[in-house]
Amino acid sequence: MATHGPAPLSGFPELLPGDRMVEAQIIDGLRRTFELHGFAPIETRAMEPVERLTGGGDVDKEIYAVRRLAEVESLESDAGLGLHFDLTVPFARYVLENAGKLEFPFRRYQIQKCWRGERPQAGRYREFTQADIDIVARGDLPFHHDVEVASVMAQALAALPVPALRLQINNRKLLQGFLQGIGAPDIAAAMRVIDKMDKVSANVVGELLRTDAGLSDKQARSCLEVAGIRTTDTSFVAQVRGLGVHDDLLDEGLAELAVVMEGCAGVAPGRVGVEADLRIARGLDYYTGTVFETRLSGYESLGSICSGGRYDSLASDGRTTYPGVGISLGVSRLLVPLFADGILAASRSVPSAVLVAMADEQSRHTSAVVAQALRARGISTEIAASADKYGKQIRSAQRRGIPYVWFPATAPEAAHEVKDIRSGDQVAADPNTWLPPEVDLTPQIISTPQPAE
Amino acid sequence: MATHGPAPLSGFPELLPGDRMVEAQIIDGLRRTFELHGFAPIETRAMEPVERLTGGGDVDKEIYAVRRLAEVESLESDAGLGLHFDLTVPFARYVLENAGKLEFPFRRYQIQKCWRGERPQAGRYREFTQADIDIVARGDLPFHHDVEVASVMAQALAALPVPALRLQINNRKLLQGFLQGIGAPDIAAAMRVIDKMDKVSANVVGELLRTDAGLSDKQARSCLEVAGIRTTDTSFVAQVRGLGVHDDLLDEGLAELAVVMEGCAGVAPGRVGVEADLRIARGLDYYTGTVFETRLSGYESLGSICSGGRYDSLASDGRTTYPGVGISLGVSRLLVPLFADGILAASRSVPSAVLVAMADEQSRHTSAVVAQALRARGISTEIAASADKYGKQIRSAQRRGIPYVWFPATAPEAAHEVKDIRSGDQVAADPNTWLPPEVDLTPQIISTPQPAE
Repeated sequence: MATHGPAPLSGFPELLPGDRMVEAQIIDGLRRTFELHGFAPIETRAMEPVERLTGGGDVDKEIYAVRRLAEVESLESDAGLGLHFDLTVPFARYVLENAGKLEFPFRRYQIQKCWRGERPQAGRYREFTQADIDIVARGDLPFHHDVEVASVMAQALAALPVPALRLQINNRKLLQGFLQGIGAPDIAAAMRVIDKMDKVSANVVGELLRTDAGLSDKQARSCLEVAGIRTTDTSFVAQVRGLGVHDDLLDEGLAELAVVMEGCAGVAPGRVGVEADLRIARGLDYYTGTVFETRLSGYESLGSICSGGRYDSLASDGRTTYPGVGISLGVSRLLVPLFADGILAASRSVPSAVLVAMADEQSRHTSAVVAQALRARGISTEIAASADKYGKQIRSAQRRGIPYVWFPATAPEAAHEVKDIRSGDQVAADPNTWLPPEVDLTPQIISTPQPAE
Repeated sequence: MATHGPAPLSGFPELLPGDRMVEAQIIDGLRRTFELHGFAPIETRAMEPVERLTGGGDVDKEIYAVRRLAEVESLESDAGLGLHFDLTVPFARYVLENAGKLEFPFRRYQIQKCWRGERPQAGRYREFTQADIDIVARGDLPFHHDVEVASVMAQALAALPVPALRLQINNRKLLQGFLQGIGAPDIAAAMRVIDKMDKVSANVVGELLRTDAGLSDKQARSCLEVAGIRTTDTSFVAQVRGLGVHDDLLDEGLAELAVVMEGCAGVAPGRVGVEADLRIARGLDYYTGTVFETRLSGYESLGSICSGGRYDSLASDGRTTYPGVGISLGVSRLLVPLFADGILAASRSVPSAVLVAMADEQSRHTSAVVAQALRARGISTEIAASADKYGKQIRSAQRRGIPYVWFPATAPEAAHEVKDIRSGDQVAADPNTWLPPEVDLTPQIISTPQPAE
């Protein structure tokens, strides 16, 4: 009975080995940057009680419920667990659970899979990897940590082999203070409308500000003016002041955003543009100050690939409140489209830099000795699977992208030889001293610039 | 309303940051060893169709079923997905799905979480990390790959900072051939009984061989004799021959096991003892030749922490069969008990080697410049959260285990100074050249030998 292979599950991207090597290298780079800044790694379990997942009031996330197969039929529904849909909810629970064992302010990074049962679409997956950094305090979290997380993530982003990124920063106090200052009747509704500005036209936003948020024509025009401000320095302050609106919270928001902008200036020149973008509102209600979004050049339709902000209550146990500030990079959202478009690829599909050939199956041990000598000096090496003709062994290396084939000495007085199978150059070599060029030692990330617009 | 923090979920171990740093370092070490031997990394999605998970006939695994919360109430049961309980089932599916894009023999490693709804007990968790290596071929997989996976895993295990390990190897052909040779009436039943030898006494096994496997007294005694053979070299061959049983499959099994034992000799002297242990049967039916188990010295009650073997059909699409050989390390099973017992720990709870102190909040920028200079040379550095008195800043470093506190120059002509807060030594230093000793640069794994027996 001839059957076919299984089909992929929509929304669950899986990578071929070459792409996975690229992803792993990128994640290792993120880890290095985060650790250089003192962020400690944690992982949390994949499951949380469903009440905790839905507890934030944000019930439009499609949660995956989990229960033991034997229990599914019984529809026993009280002990419900669900897969986490982000890393913030489990982190908040981890902080509460381990508060007595952690030192505050606690800096952590966390790189894990998350799951959402959403309809799959470009940039939205049912399983995806997030990389989060957060700083959380017990009681009071000084404002300079807002600058710190922005600056650390900007440095991490700047090191990525991806098209240019734009880190967009705003402050909810600024928007909220402005709306208070103009006398908006329903500030939350107005914020929600402003949050739509990258999806619909200014005309539509103006209309919604009037119909959904109850603003007058003049108030709506003011709103569109402030939300249209976008600067790469602190000149947004003067522009907002020029609109003639006065409010203490607005002043606080302006001052905070100016500090974050100054703190990020020059952190990652060229690769990551940092902008004050006053239309960034973030839909989520728990942000209380600084907010971040990030766009990938040429992939604006993906939405924000790296978002976050300040929340004055990340967690609370009823006695103590834990404020936090953090930012979360959508690793899958960023990388999967770049793999699909061939913008990111690995220079080869295996870690191996060298394939050690074999004259015949009896000499497998000789080849193994050579391979161990190379590995002892950090050179990833495999041994030919079969003692085929040398031409066949070379082609097997070629198909995997392995750059070198090693021919062990076949007699005591003979020399080992190594062939660069790309150039065909073959030279005598000693397995205890030979080294490939640095660029051939490990698989390299090939980053193809996008076609010019 | 005063409420308490959430309680941990039994069976879902979560690590504090120090322990997680140790786990991450150990996993990085495994990755290095696997990649040096040409194994490419892959990850598979967490979910598989339930039919695929239960398809192997091994239905006593407690599978976690997953469905969107909205669907739970409707009890819609056809599109069922479940969380994978190991990495072999998803790997087999990945091979079939991507067969046209992979080069065979395909060497992969895979380090991911798995889930089982089992009753939690020592060494058995509901969520746990596995690290697997496998080599899979299309059509035919030469026997030397059995030697290769054993030898690679032995090298990986030898590098672990854990108590001594014993890699136990057998071959199902040997046992099966022996049982054929003595005329056992139900070979599968006899194998299952032999598999219990590390849990029950030889007397009980002898009894079960008679009652459950239908062996005569003489056959049962023979079985106990062969299953009692354990050697660190190939002398098991002569011992088995001495039992006077003749069978072609037995000869094949003896020859294969001898080759694996010779191939592993001297791979990891001292740290990982390699033994031929003829009672190892592995309950799972899909193993067809070489089988592996591994015991941790002092933790024998955990059972095998690293197991695997040869399966002549890892996967099949009805036209092509993919034989494989692999071995799977239970990372959580190995490490979580060692963390709990204090045998493994990190030298500090944060990556930071240096805390840069601050004279006052106005000098935060000065401290940031020092921190960036240190980070640029790979020194993990954080800046004091608050400009408290120096004594308080030093104690904050102490609580995290940060070994050095840096005092930036407070005037243009003054020198920077750095203090080793363990010894109290304080010296002038330049942020562009100073380096801590290698041992202080990154958190070290502190491995405490077990108390002597």
